[in-house]
Amino acid sequence: MLVIGERINATRKRIRKAILGRDADRIRQEARAQADAGADCIDANAGIEADREPDDLRWLVEAIQSEVDLPVALDSTNAEALRAALPVHQGEPMINSITGEAGRHEAVLPLAREHNARLVALTIGPDGMPTNVDERLAAAHQIAELAAGHGVALDRLYFDPVIYTAATDGDAGRSAIETVRRLREDFPDAHITCGLSNISFGLPHRNVLNRAFLPMLLAAGLDSAIIDPTEPQMMAMVVAAEALLGRDDFCMNYIAAERAGRLT
Amino acid sequence: MLVIGERINATRKRIRKAILGRDADRIRQEARAQADAGADCIDANAGIEADREPDDLRWLVEAIQSEVDLPVALDSTNAEALRAALPVHQGEPMINSITGEAGRHEAVLPLAREHNARLVALTIGPDGMPTNVDERLAAAHQIAELAAGHGVALDRLYFDPVIYTAATDGDAGRSAIETVRRLREDFPDAHITCGLSNISFGLPHRNVLNRAFLPMLLAAGLDSAIIDPTEPQMMAMVVAAEALLGRDDFCMNYIAAERAGRLT
Repeated sequence: MLVIGERINATRKRIRKAILGRDADRIRQEARAQADAGADCIDANAGIEADREPDDLRWLVEAIQSEVDLPVALDSTNAEALRAALPVHQGEPMINSITGEAGRHEAVLPLAREHNARLVALTIGPDGMPTNVDERLAAAHQIAELAAGHGVALDRLYFDPVIYTAATDGDAGRSAIETVRRLREDFPDAHITCGLSNISFGLPHRNVLNRAFLPMLLAAGLDSAIIDPTEPQMMAMVVAAEALLGRDDFCMNYIAAERAGRLT
Repeated sequence: MLVIGERINATRKRIRKAILGRDADRIRQEARAQADAGADCIDANAGIEADREPDDLRWLVEAIQSEVDLPVALDSTNAEALRAALPVHQGEPMINSITGEAGRHEAVLPLAREHNARLVALTIGPDGMPTNVDERLAAAHQIAELAAGHGVALDRLYFDPVIYTAATDGDAGRSAIETVRRLREDFPDAHITCGLSNISFGLPHRNVLNRAFLPMLLAAGLDSAIIDPTEPQMMAMVVAAEALLGRDDFCMNYIAAERAGRLT
């Protein structure tokens, strides 16, 4: 599965400060820690101000890839920022994210095609935030069609089920699981990822909920997640779930993780 | 969900010793620890020798219920032992377990009916251990029919998907999840439990695998499990999974567990 490390995000105060102060060492450190913990891709969010985002995102991608040999997920809806940063990216980039809303895919799909980027697609249709599983599936089909129209194949897409908050929506967990299950059925060739931590917003000990939620989603068909890989217990769930779901031949990765002291 | 505490089992050396020495304090201690940790039912396995099992099991049930006000799961396939122990049980007992094999249900079903017992039913048909999901489902239907013939209703049954070992069977996890999903579909009124720890047999850090597996099974429809409730991280997964699956109104149990310091 594809683990996307979420720690380099301008909504975090110390990351924001590092971006504003061009503190590449701080960014390298965050990239290295995530790579060492098992990240397959490093998310980069430089969303401070739209005007400076092109420069900031380009700098951030360069800082990350000066330290780790991993793809970066360019976490922006700003086509100018993507246009500035994609050319400096080494290897196969990821773009996080598009939706089916007007203005949220037209400029990005051609960029994805041009740079052979993988693309996180939130299951949000033209009418905005989904209210049920059917609307999420309809949005996925709409986006798949838009992508095909731009020559972006299904296996480039990482659908995101758009997870709501369990504290305010008792159905949030089941809806997400059901969305993943149906996305896997309808799109066997596409990928499914998610920013899962929204599920636990407003509740105590959020990491306990996040840790219980990930195996459920993986069993339903998720094959990627946007998480903090430096949380050892979360990564232990990833490795254990892969072994349990027969995605780890002879449990070799699991056993290797144990030998490396990475199971807690 | 119904948490069945698994710690009072004669295969554990110190429990065997307590049974042989009639050390009721030791048994009470194990019962109390499990009740305090959140067990809803206490499994009692007195399987040392068939000849003495009736006396041992009756003593064990009495020892447990002299300490905790919980039902006991009489963990025996020995009808004589059940016949000796059921009359001393206070409240509604559980019997663990029957199968669809010849000799593994005929004597027990009438006892279950007579004592209004809940009944763990392993999904094993007349031909022995199942080799795939279909055989497990066929066994469940066979057992449901046998039970109905003895006046034991579906809501008394706790089907067990018979979990194999991931280390030697790469399909063990998926088969168990699929079995639970289909049992839930075919038997909305029945319960589903399992002794899940077999999945991790022979692998290191077994509790990490067990902890990742339980949420997957609960999401598929499991509503009971035979576990060690004194393992705090496993019980945290139980409480978190219930909140995530909308089985905990307003996450009140989850929040109470957090306040009681039971989430780790």
